[in-house]
Amino acid sequence: MRELLYEGKAKRIFSTDEEQTVLIEYKDSATAFNGQKKADITGKGRLNNEITSLLFLKLQEQGIPSHFIKRISETEQLVKRVTIIPLEVVVRNIAAGSLSKRLGIEEGKALTKPLVEFYLKNDDLGDPLLTTEHVYELDLATEEELNILKEKALKINTVLSSFFTELGINLIDFKLEFGKDNEGEILLADEISPDTCRLWDKKTNEKLDKDVFRRDLGSLTEAYETILARLGGKQHV
Amino acid sequence: MRELLYEGKAKRIFSTDEEQTVLIEYKDSATAFNGQKKADITGKGRLNNEITSLLFLKLQEQGIPSHFIKRISETEQLVKRVTIIPLEVVVRNIAAGSLSKRLGIEEGKALTKPLVEFYLKNDDLGDPLLTTEHVYELDLATEEELNILKEKALKINTVLSSFFTELGINLIDFKLEFGKDNEGEILLADEISPDTCRLWDKKTNEKLDKDVFRRDLGSLTEAYETILARLGGKQHV
Repeated sequence: MRELLYEGKAKRIFSTDEEQTVLIEYKDSATAFNGQKKADITGKGRLNNEITSLLFLKLQEQGIPSHFIKRISETEQLVKRVTIIPLEVVVRNIAAGSLSKRLGIEEGKALTKPLVEFYLKNDDLGDPLLTTEHVYELDLATEEELNILKEKALKINTVLSSFFTELGINLIDFKLEFGKDNEGEILLADEISPDTCRLWDKKTNEKLDKDVFRRDLGSLTEAYETILARLGGKQHV
Repeated sequence: MRELLYEGKAKRIFSTDEEQTVLIEYKDSATAFNGQKKADITGKGRLNNEITSLLFLKLQEQGIPSHFIKRISETEQLVKRVTIIPLEVVVRNIAAGSLSKRLGIEEGKALTKPLVEFYLKNDDLGDPLLTTEHVYELDLATEEELNILKEKALKINTVLSSFFTELGINLIDFKLEFGKDNEGEILLADEISPDTCRLWDKKTNEKLDKDVFRRDLGSLTEAYETILARLGGKQHV
């Protein structure tokens, strides 16, 4: 009994026989600029499924729970059913992307400390930046919940930054999503992959993330394979 | 001895014989959309000079200090010399303008409580919205200073909202700028006028502010004269 519950730009979500378990299928589609740039890239679904699985396991080892249960095929994983909080939580260590563009901070400049931003998860509005007051006005989260999200995001940043450093990679910034399970607990959800992180090679500054696609810098799958190989995953299941 | 110190889109600032006093001349130019729409509107300088003077006096009566000293001619006022903090402090009571557009909140919807936003005062970047973390990262103000700005902005909102209500006008939102005097005290500065406020007639919802110019809704000077007349100012000095 597998029923499509939701189809996003990069993933499909299906029900399973277990009420509190859903299946995520990672698609081969790449999109950027709020869906204005699109492509089908064979292997992307497999890579993001495997990378996300490895990173969620790594975070679980470090005491950071998530919706992740297990990877069950090249492009599929089982996760706990959660209700997604409609906020994109972005953590930045080094200025890049929209931060550089909006505020005129040179790309590559180290920030004085990790910066946490909240964006409204709303494609029609182009995922606008929110202040904490906007979050409360729109009733998206309470002050307590926002503090939990920020604390979790910073802890995840500490674990992932140190992990990627060991692999010769700079974690520039990344986007997280969280959800609430049926007991109301806030859990890390969605994915953590080169689609949702900026990852630069420490020696060469080579971009090993979706900017390769956004900015036409070469082969996306080669970049993502490099990340997976350094993470110690098998290159081809 | 009058030396031009600065020329902005709507005002010129001159030195005076007093080191700590400068003269502001209000110009007749109207601009919108970060300078993309421009016009010369005879009488606008006089109106904004007079309205700002009346509002700054009103605020001083209510214990809110500002840089304002006195109006000295139709288009000129003397103010205390301050170093402007490069933040635009916006207070919103009712959703309109960029808030409605960015976050999809219907224009005219009352907010659950007054909302304070900070924008970077930077024309080249289009005055981008800032979170408090951006303010600290860019070293624009300390946490203590930001709290002072927010507290002052909310107090000004209380005084002005009540004052405009008596005049049959809804104070929808407004933009403030603050500066530091030579002793480091934070003072309200710049102007408060229909250029920097949204003011809607309580009965008809008629717009009596710069949206008349932005959206081509009729005569800007007629709208501004209405505000001045209700404030009890002389219509023509």
